[in-house]
Amino acid sequence: MRIDVLFTPAEFESARLEGAAAVVIDVLRASTTIVEALAAGASAVVPVVGVEEARALAGPGTLVGGERGGLRCEGFDLGNSPGEYTAESVGGRRVVLCTSNGTRAIAAAAGAGASPVLVAGFVNLKAAVRAAGAAGRDVVAICAGCEGAFSLEDAACAGGVVAGLAYRQGPLATRSDAAVAAETLFRANREQLVRLLGHTAHGRRLVALGLGDDLAVCAELNRRAVVPRLAADPGGGRVLVPLSAPGEPER
Amino acid sequence: MRIDVLFTPAEFESARLEGAAAVVIDVLRASTTIVEALAAGASAVVPVVGVEEARALAGPGTLVGGERGGLRCEGFDLGNSPGEYTAESVGGRRVVLCTSNGTRAIAAAAGAGASPVLVAGFVNLKAAVRAAGAAGRDVVAICAGCEGAFSLEDAACAGGVVAGLAYRQGPLATRSDAAVAAETLFRANREQLVRLLGHTAHGRRLVALGLGDDLAVCAELNRRAVVPRLAADPGGGRVLVPLSAPGEPER
Repeated sequence: MRIDVLFTPAEFESARLEGAAAVVIDVLRASTTIVEALAAGASAVVPVVGVEEARALAGPGTLVGGERGGLRCEGFDLGNSPGEYTAESVGGRRVVLCTSNGTRAIAAAAGAGASPVLVAGFVNLKAAVRAAGAAGRDVVAICAGCEGAFSLEDAACAGGVVAGLAYRQGPLATRSDAAVAAETLFRANREQLVRLLGHTAHGRRLVALGLGDDLAVCAELNRRAVVPRLAADPGGGRVLVPLSAPGEPER
Repeated sequence: MRIDVLFTPAEFESARLEGAAAVVIDVLRASTTIVEALAAGASAVVPVVGVEEARALAGPGTLVGGERGGLRCEGFDLGNSPGEYTAESVGGRRVVLCTSNGTRAIAAAAGAGASPVLVAGFVNLKAAVRAAGAAGRDVVAICAGCEGAFSLEDAACAGGVVAGLAYRQGPLATRSDAAVAAETLFRANREQLVRLLGHTAHGRRLVALGLGDDLAVCAELNRRAVVPRLAADPGGGRVLVPLSAPGEPER
């Protein structure tokens, strides 16, 4: 198994990923929100790139969530704070989610031919590693970044995926330079994830917007066992649903 | 002063860098070779991207060096091993240099509007930091990478630039997430640079080509005080010449 990491949209938007499993990472906050929504019992999360596209998908039994510039879009039912996605708000319902960085990365991973496309944050790191390893393919961790730029929190989380896979695979795993670098960033920060998030460019912006409470949720390692997986939607398009892992609890 | 790092060609080839100083880094081996050539007394190094372009610039008093796939191009006077660039071989002469990654990064930095464009490796790190700081502008470290991909050795060297600038500038320096990440990579590896180079994808390839001796040269921190700077060539185009630093030795 070869393990690679793509740190920025400039890299992943030109990548060819046929034959590889992709793990898409947008710690602040799309990954975390998607995991929380599915853990709370949402039937599916529909990742969309555009605000108008999201609005057009609203309907009975379907909620629309997401942000632009960190704040809930006008007319949306929910923003992009993971804490909003509870059993009461989203249980049994379909959620259309539109975010600035994460949903673009998911679309790019699918467009580049990766399969499966999984979603990981710190909150489901261990489960995501297990799922990515079980795919039996090369693994590429895709960092959503922040407005096109490198995001330290996504790179560190990608390093957690690398570390976990390398531990599970032992000598069968080979790591690209980017994977080795990401692992170094994870190991340097793993004991202080909340502090890390508070120091990143994206984290500081969320704090300035009054959304600092989200950081603690996004930094809570392995609080969930659900792994979102991109699947064909019977109604067309693609949706994120919990990966089925026989014999293991998903939530 | 804002300090940023661009890790891959996908990032720097679309960047706009007006108003910023660029420090271009290709540890293995263009940066190191350019520094060694100027330290050995070459009058200028002409960085070119294409092999045919390099051949066309050959002439009396002008040597042509460079590589494709790590090996000296057919008909070239020199390869891309820094140890080849001695006072005997290049002193007083002009050197046209064509390499796979580094010369492309230099061209991209200039094309993106950065000024000055400086060249750094581990061999001239301290001098490059001093020169970049003296420019009095934002600084962007540009990692050449290896065949389009992230290179750990370039990222770690960029982190050395970040660490040095942050130390010199104190609270006046702000670092992007990428700059913080690079600094972490530098600090994790600074005591074992030869070992680092031997473990990177590019380093392993050079060892396999029988060019392993180059790694020790490229890892020798601060062996030179010369800082290559891109300047207009009176005959047209751009050339790398030693930065003039009044009162300080250049070699």
